[in-house]
Amino acid sequence: MSEQQYRIERDTFGELKVPADRYWGAQTQRSLQNFDIGGPAERLPEPLIKAFGVVKKAAAVVNTEYGMEAKLGEAIQKAADDVISGKLIDHFPLVVFQTGSGTQSNMNANEVISNRAIELLGGELGSKKPVHPNDHVNKSQSSNDTFPTVMHVAAVTEIHHNLLPALETLHKALDAKAKEFANIIKIGRTHLQDATPLTLGQEFSGYAQQLANSIERVKATLPRLSMLAQGGTAVGTGLNTKKGWDVKIAGEIANLTGLPFQTAPNKFEALATHDAMVEAHGALNTVAVSFMKIANDIRYLGSGPRCGLGELSLPENEPGSSIMPGKVNPTQCEALTMVAAQVMGNNVTISIAGSNGQFELNVFKPVIIKNVLQSIRLLSDGARSFTSHCVSGIEANEKRISTLLNESLMLATILNSHLGYDNVAKCAKKAHKEGTTLKEATVALGFLSPEEFDEKVQPELMLHPDN
Amino acid sequence: MSEQQYRIERDTFGELKVPADRYWGAQTQRSLQNFDIGGPAERLPEPLIKAFGVVKKAAAVVNTEYGMEAKLGEAIQKAADDVISGKLIDHFPLVVFQTGSGTQSNMNANEVISNRAIELLGGELGSKKPVHPNDHVNKSQSSNDTFPTVMHVAAVTEIHHNLLPALETLHKALDAKAKEFANIIKIGRTHLQDATPLTLGQEFSGYAQQLANSIERVKATLPRLSMLAQGGTAVGTGLNTKKGWDVKIAGEIANLTGLPFQTAPNKFEALATHDAMVEAHGALNTVAVSFMKIANDIRYLGSGPRCGLGELSLPENEPGSSIMPGKVNPTQCEALTMVAAQVMGNNVTISIAGSNGQFELNVFKPVIIKNVLQSIRLLSDGARSFTSHCVSGIEANEKRISTLLNESLMLATILNSHLGYDNVAKCAKKAHKEGTTLKEATVALGFLSPEEFDEKVQPELMLHPDN
Amino acid sequence: MSEQQYRIERDTFGELKVPADRYWGAQTQRSLQNFDIGGPAERLPEPLIKAFGVVKKAAAVVNTEYGMEAKLGEAIQKAADDVISGKLIDHFPLVVFQTGSGTQSNMNANEVISNRAIELLGGELGSKKPVHPNDHVNKSQSSNDTFPTVMHVAAVTEIHHNLLPALETLHKALDAKAKEFANIIKIGRTHLQDATPLTLGQEFSGYAQQLANSIERVKATLPRLSMLAQGGTAVGTGLNTKKGWDVKIAGEIANLTGLPFQTAPNKFEALATHDAMVEAHGALNTVAVSFMKIANDIRYLGSGPRCGLGELSLPENEPGSSIMPGKVNPTQCEALTMVAAQVMGNNVTISIAGSNGQFELNVFKPVIIKNVLQSIRLLSDGARSFTSHCVSGIEANEKRISTLLNESLMLATILNSHLGYDNVAKCAKKAHKEGTTLKEATVALGFLSPEEFDEKVQPELMLHPDN
Amino acid sequence: MSEQQYRIERDTFGELKVPADRYWGAQTQRSLQNFDIGGPAERLPEPLIKAFGVVKKAAAVVNTEYGMEAKLGEAIQKAADDVISGKLIDHFPLVVFQTGSGTQSNMNANEVISNRAIELLGGELGSKKPVHPNDHVNKSQSSNDTFPTVMHVAAVTEIHHNLLPALETLHKALDAKAKEFANIIKIGRTHLQDATPLTLGQEFSGYAQQLANSIERVKATLPRLSMLAQGGTAVGTGLNTKKGWDVKIAGEIANLTGLPFQTAPNKFEALATHDAMVEAHGALNTVAVSFMKIANDIRYLGSGPRCGLGELSLPENEPGSSIMPGKVNPTQCEALTMVAAQVMGNNVTISIAGSNGQFELNVFKPVIIKNVLQSIRLLSDGARSFTSHCVSGIEANEKRISTLLNESLMLATILNSHLGYDNVAKCAKKAHKEGTTLKEATVALGFLSPEEFDEKVQPELMLHPDN
Repeated sequence: MSEQQYRIERDTFGELKVPADRYWGAQTQRSLQNFDIGGPAERLPEPLIKAFGVVKKAAAVVNTEYGMEAKLGEAIQKAADDVISGKLIDHFPLVVFQTGSGTQSNMNANEVISNRAIELLGGELGSKKPVHPNDHVNKSQSSNDTFPTVMHVAAVTEIHHNLLPALETLHKALDAKAKEFANIIKIGRTHLQDATPLTLGQEFSGYAQQLANSIERVKATLPRLSMLAQGGTAVGTGLNTKKGWDVKIAGEIANLTGLPFQTAPNKFEALATHDAMVEAHGALNTVAVSFMKIANDIRYLGSGPRCGLGELSLPENEPGSSIMPGKVNPTQCEALTMVAAQVMGNNVTISIAGSNGQFELNVFKPVIIKNVLQSIRLLSDGARSFTSHCVSGIEANEKRISTLLNESLMLATILNSHLGYDNVAKCAKKAHKEGTTLKEATVALGFLSPEEFDEKVQPELMLHPDN
Repeated sequence: MSEQQYRIERDTFGELKVPADRYWGAQTQRSLQNFDIGGPAERLPEPLIKAFGVVKKAAAVVNTEYGMEAKLGEAIQKAADDVISGKLIDHFPLVVFQTGSGTQSNMNANEVISNRAIELLGGELGSKKPVHPNDHVNKSQSSNDTFPTVMHVAAVTEIHHNLLPALETLHKALDAKAKEFANIIKIGRTHLQDATPLTLGQEFSGYAQQLANSIERVKATLPRLSMLAQGGTAVGTGLNTKKGWDVKIAGEIANLTGLPFQTAPNKFEALATHDAMVEAHGALNTVAVSFMKIANDIRYLGSGPRCGLGELSLPENEPGSSIMPGKVNPTQCEALTMVAAQVMGNNVTISIAGSNGQFELNVFKPVIIKNVLQSIRLLSDGARSFTSHCVSGIEANEKRISTLLNESLMLATILNSHLGYDNVAKCAKKAHKEGTTLKEATVALGFLSPEEFDEKVQPELMLHPDN
Repeated sequence: MSEQQYRIERDTFGELKVPADRYWGAQTQRSLQNFDIGGPAERLPEPLIKAFGVVKKAAAVVNTEYGMEAKLGEAIQKAADDVISGKLIDHFPLVVFQTGSGTQSNMNANEVISNRAIELLGGELGSKKPVHPNDHVNKSQSSNDTFPTVMHVAAVTEIHHNLLPALETLHKALDAKAKEFANIIKIGRTHLQDATPLTLGQEFSGYAQQLANSIERVKATLPRLSMLAQGGTAVGTGLNTKKGWDVKIAGEIANLTGLPFQTAPNKFEALATHDAMVEAHGALNTVAVSFMKIANDIRYLGSGPRCGLGELSLPENEPGSSIMPGKVNPTQCEALTMVAAQVMGNNVTISIAGSNGQFELNVFKPVIIKNVLQSIRLLSDGARSFTSHCVSGIEANEKRISTLLNESLMLATILNSHLGYDNVAKCAKKAHKEGTTLKEATVALGFLSPEEFDEKVQPELMLHPDN
Repeated sequence: MSEQQYRIERDTFGELKVPADRYWGAQTQRSLQNFDIGGPAERLPEPLIKAFGVVKKAAAVVNTEYGMEAKLGEAIQKAADDVISGKLIDHFPLVVFQTGSGTQSNMNANEVISNRAIELLGGELGSKKPVHPNDHVNKSQSSNDTFPTVMHVAAVTEIHHNLLPALETLHKALDAKAKEFANIIKIGRTHLQDATPLTLGQEFSGYAQQLANSIERVKATLPRLSMLAQGGTAVGTGLNTKKGWDVKIAGEIANLTGLPFQTAPNKFEALATHDAMVEAHGALNTVAVSFMKIANDIRYLGSGPRCGLGELSLPENEPGSSIMPGKVNPTQCEALTMVAAQVMGNNVTISIAGSNGQFELNVFKPVIIKNVLQSIRLLSDGARSFTSHCVSGIEANEKRISTLLNESLMLATILNSHLGYDNVAKCAKKAHKEGTTLKEATVALGFLSPEEFDEKVQPELMLHPDN
């Protein structure tokens, strides 16, 4: 680096050259040099960086209330706003695989905000004056309570503003299809084998219910995910904060985000464990499991066009093959099932990471939040993409559905109460063996007349309990 | 088998010899022969068998209400009572790795109850008269709605009567220790490195909070786990039931168990998915993660007796080594962490199984419930064993704790607000490098007089926010 | 217990009552009382117990060589033979969730063998004379090297005598079907959509190749799994053994089992880690993944009988439904996929357990070997059951296969080199849109005459590269 | 986009605007629009893109041999070289969550190379003349065989050139420490409790052995990972290739990479499964498990500086706390254990994805290779970072090690053969209870004179078997 290209920053370990056009300081630079693991692809995700902005802003507000010079507090708030807006994203270069407390990312935030605030106040970058990264931006905080707070703020925010709306979008689309297909009677399939009939609408109502449940189960984890560690400082005792500071900052974060954050009832638990993250991701894992089922069903029902089940037509979005002309594939289902596989693996990463806390701190924080935020993003994007490029355009192939229905032997089930299970089994087995219809077999065995059969065996009667 | 040793049973596939002293019938016997996978160790667990008793009894009650002959209904109820009591457990020999719908276990229940009821009514075993396994015991039911109902009944019952009380027991013990140790000040450890102090009671309060949260997070999944599939019959439509039957049987099951079961709002979802099981096990997985943290901490804090941290003395329960005389080990911690590892793996089995439902049915039912019930059992037994053989007997080695505390350099943190972070770092680094005390270094650097140091640096002041 | 029912045994912790008809001693009894976790279902599996017999016998042989009194050595060998034969299985009641070193199970073996040897020599049970459980049966051993040795002996033995033959059985059956179906041309399916044709034999050859690879990949892990820790004693140094003892006992174990066991090159690694188990189970996990694919394909190809793909007929082994008479399901596929899900979860348990070793010992030994042996057993039994009750009886529905093949539009692919990808796409899309045959569309678009089409588009030409 | 900013590209679905400064075509653009999932962070990794260059170049070489116009073949090779060099990386914008066959990425490669080749030949971008993406760049290929080939080429290349050297680097560093520390005797620890002594060198030799085994176990999976699907085309039959083409392209890829690639013996297996990826990642998972153990041990041994075990001093690389001045943390251990957690989760993603192949194709290809390449990268970078920033700089605190050693009671173990296990237990327990030395207790109990004790109980004698 030529002299114009860098400036000198320093920390308790000494001096370091930092690119002149970056706000970060010595500790960020040191992390970059010491953790050459994974490269830019492994940078901590944007929602986490933005949450740093929120938390540092809230801290400045509360610290001002507790006596920090107003001028400094305001400058910190303005600088934090630039982090929240995303403007400074390129000033956060650190990767997941750094110190397990996320201290280096907390210092990255402290350094960037202090330098930006210094700039706003007309000072010199790197001088730490008048806004010191530790003594002012990080005032009353430790990385050990700040990083988990930022984790929770990022996760809850993304769940509220990204995941839940996406799940609702998909729920609505599935529910609309359930209604659209309410009168299309089709063969049911259990064990992949022909079973008694249902409507295509009923089938889709099951998927819609899965989404309704997904929303409920994600929400059910939020009470614990909305608890914030901030105020615990280094080990949970709150050393170097003032009484009430924890409640006030949780309130200020709630105020800034419009989300119901509260201070954690026990800060020792909040620093040393990430059980709330593991729990919340357990719900995301369940959403992934639901997605796998729905996407698999839809692609099998849409299989063909001529040699599969062919009950559904899925939207044709792009050419499917570089060698087979005219081929179209259920690619949105494929993307969604890959999302599901990723999220299900992330669940294990998070569980292992969560289980390995030690004494007063869990030091797998960055890998936990990286995986949680990736899962939220992928499930959200995946749900939206699947909705708009697949579900909304699904059409029923009514002719094909009707053909299959009428071939089935399982309509026999309705005869159980008339003939008894064992006799009905004889009819179905005879028809299967001889390749005839169920009616022919039943009549041939003398159990019913053709007229009786037609009266009793009507798919329409098999779609609900008897009145 | 000699003639006295067996009787002939039959199903739609033909005749089979069944041991004379067993109530099961042809379909059970056929499953035994076709699924020689894993042997007795892989039998479906007892709480599931008992839940079959509950569900079949409730069905008999409701079917009688809907017109089944009272005499038959009463006989079925009595036979079901023998299943509930555990008396007939040896008549349920089937393993997990059978048909994925659990049909063979449902038929096992139907056959055992029908034969036992026949016996009670003075009939001949295997005659299916006057109580037919399908037409009476299984009346208005399909395996496809019965097995998931039994799964939910078993899981919710075990959570209520086994897991939650066990978690409460452990919570209480940890909370008692938190109170007992409230005045013992010790060194904190973050990143395994010396940090600012806290009380041993505060440390244990974090564990207690984990248990309090465990209870909350398990409970948060119960609303969906308490929904019953019964009434959906073969594919979810409720074919072969009567209107209202589903609500009534859920009510009767709630009545028999005293637990708040309800009929599932969408039976298609309830047969085709086990999302509620995946969700609930996500909470169990989180409990396992908590257990791993707590047990690890306690064994490290108890490490020694002379070359470890040695802050705690754990109960000595048994000789620890076949070669090292006098060795005593934290074996309850070891058992509990092994439980945690098992449960965390089970979570993956259940998630994979849950994701692979197809159309109207998920056919991984037996492996899902086996793993769920194993996790509940292990967590419950593990929590109780850990409580009584470890936590309750933990003693603090106050002398050792005090020695370590006074050696720490991290007490310096309290000086941040007086001297600033950078200066305090100089003191701590100097002491570390030169092997002196923090006080010596601080005085030598001229930052404070010895009296000032003593006044400001007191562990007692570092246990909470400043007033 | 009345006086006749028990005897007094003692260890360094004191005296205990032990059932009079059991050979175990005080430490076993103490474990039973201290670890009430999971009950009989969680006992350590039989192959592990038998391996204790092998290792204790080998130790007696080598110890005699190194100077132990021959009379004692012989009595220990005879008693160990009773463990190997399975005769004493009821004397091994301990569960997985005990001390993580398996010390209690090692002492169980020492106690049972010493008491049985005492009995053989006419002594008094519990007297520890003339055969002491520690000083003689456990001579030159620690639990810390014995238990991992027993783990490896059990796993390698089960892989050799159970898993590999079972995989070969399934491989043979799939290979036979590949040959049987060599001339049946069928539609290929990629993305579940119709693709270019292949023979049913080619499709099955892929499954057969998966099995051939399974065998190779399991074998590829054996070099490290065949290394034995024995001789490392308490921490890996070999304290309390004699020079060369480790090599001799590995040789004796190889001799007794006929398997190529060797002494581990580094005993510290062999006690403190179970990387070799994690590696080996990684291969088992891959076998499970293969099984999932094969079983899924076969049940989809066999789906129907009238509303599915219907290309295969699977053996009908049992009634499939308690409500739908005549229904037959692919139950062997279901059992096998449940096995796969279990094994895939076990892989996570084992990985977590393997990652948590501490200093000189990994104390997740029992849960690791329990899961490894369960996976071996389930994969072996599953493969055999799937072979005999499903694969061997699979029949091709040639008529159905042929019908589907001739409807496909993907035969067009062979025209790429004549007409170019874009033109061929036009033909396929036109036929799809208009519901006509490919031939009609191609001719209508003027690309080929009917004769040219027939000459070029023959499925038989599409089954291999061009000559 | 203004007119200068884009050009028109077309595929069988119609026309699309593409940025004028990008080489990609319509299908890439369509994928970008249809799969807005995850954003740039989820792009397929660079080694995969480079492997596309290798495979497309090799195909051009072999296609020329088989009759493709030489001029076109040469242009394709030159364009492919630009992909191999990384120059065109910005022209590969597609994310993991696209079609599961990776068809869109294969088309991305075809389009970029064709346009770049057209440019080299003076043609017009988007004209598909004279180099057509399908008919020339993709000649004799399908995405279905190309993408898995690219997967294997990328994975094997990264294992050879990145992972194995990194593992060797770490192995060498650990082995050097084992030698450096060969004469430092220390207390052993089993169950975290004091055990018999070993040298610090022996302890590190265990870690070194883990690395030696890691290298072997990764290599053991390469035979199957080096098999290439290329030549199978759409479903494995090799339709649209020529006889021998598969062998030749594998040879050409081996030639270009210098690695022992071969054509897969069964192309059906090679398209429809990714068992070889699952197997290989099983070895990576084991490496992760090893890393977790080693990094955990080292950070615990380095815990302190004053209140932990303190046997090792780890390099101090950066300030450890934003609140505790002077704190230094084992951050490289933390990064490495987070890598381990990520890789262990990836193993589940890959296993689930691998298990879900359907008929002739597995459509989880992109998510599988993304996770495999991420694991390779993280393990490689992690191993190098851990070596250079931690292991190489580890120092033994000999004074502390010696102090701890001499306090231990477990030195008693060596007396077993003199006094018997039970008597030795008495000595150790007495010393423990009374807080005296082992010597004092042994003498007090009258078992040995002080001189006898000193002669027999020497740590130096406990480091190896008796001669």
